[in-house]
Amino acid sequence: MERQFDRAWLATALEEARAGLVEGGVPVGAALYGADGALLGRGRNRRVQDGDPSTHAETAAFRAAGRQRSYRGTTMVTTLSPCWYCSGLVRQFGISRVVVGESVTFHGGHDWLAEHGVEVVVLDDPECVAMMREFVARNPELWGEDIGE
Amino acid sequence: MERQFDRAWLATALEEARAGLVEGGVPVGAALYGADGALLGRGRNRRVQDGDPSTHAETAAFRAAGRQRSYRGTTMVTTLSPCWYCSGLVRQFGISRVVVGESVTFHGGHDWLAEHGVEVVVLDDPECVAMMREFVARNPELWGEDIGE
Repeated sequence: MERQFDRAWLATALEEARAGLVEGGVPVGAALYGADGALLGRGRNRRVQDGDPSTHAETAAFRAAGRQRSYRGTTMVTTLSPCWYCSGLVRQFGISRVVVGESVTFHGGHDWLAEHGVEVVVLDDPECVAMMREFVARNPELWGEDIGE
Repeated sequence: MERQFDRAWLATALEEARAGLVEGGVPVGAALYGADGALLGRGRNRRVQDGDPSTHAETAAFRAAGRQRSYRGTTMVTTLSPCWYCSGLVRQFGISRVVVGESVTFHGGHDWLAEHGVEVVVLDDPECVAMMREFVARNPELWGEDIGE
């Protein structure tokens, strides 16, 4: 169920995605929020910027949050449906909620997460859709590389 | 099915795990080998060393391999059954084989990977089991943190 701050939190993830686009990177952004609503970490895909295929937006936000004893009550907000890698991150560490900007241009593992008790909210945000649609049309090779296809 | 080089490759992952133990870290190591048998990348869990919860052994080896256009034919060798995060990595990027040192002390997502077409070999290596068993007994809090429990 959508909550009061979800769209404001998505705006943080969108800022990260836009910054990635300007850098010539894959424009996916994410942020991890605590149970109390505090921003724990934010980040963006860094495949191009750092030559690092392991840094997807969600793993960047997770890393930026540093070591945490528990992820109970946390929310991962991401501009795009999380791939299997990032879905596995959410499941393994017990992140409670995932807020997805859009799942039109890419449908990752968010249904699997919902089946396993994660609260999933898909916002169908038109800016997220437009940004990815344009990126994929212009950079099909890079996008394929980023999702292993 | 076990192949000729699997135990030699596991030795590389074990070297990483032992180095992590000496550093006071979580002793899990991994290595990614190409279809031609070349070592593409190796690494170890760096939660303690770098304060980085996103660097599990498998993600470290994957990162060390740099950007690759395809993972077809590659083998991820890891001293311990891959958690959901690392299993998701393998599935998303189409890594073809996973060689697991042991799955006695922790049973992650390798059955799920096998169901989804990944070739999985579990070696039941006694050194891998002994190292993790001792580590978990001495560091239950740290181990719980590393797997989100």
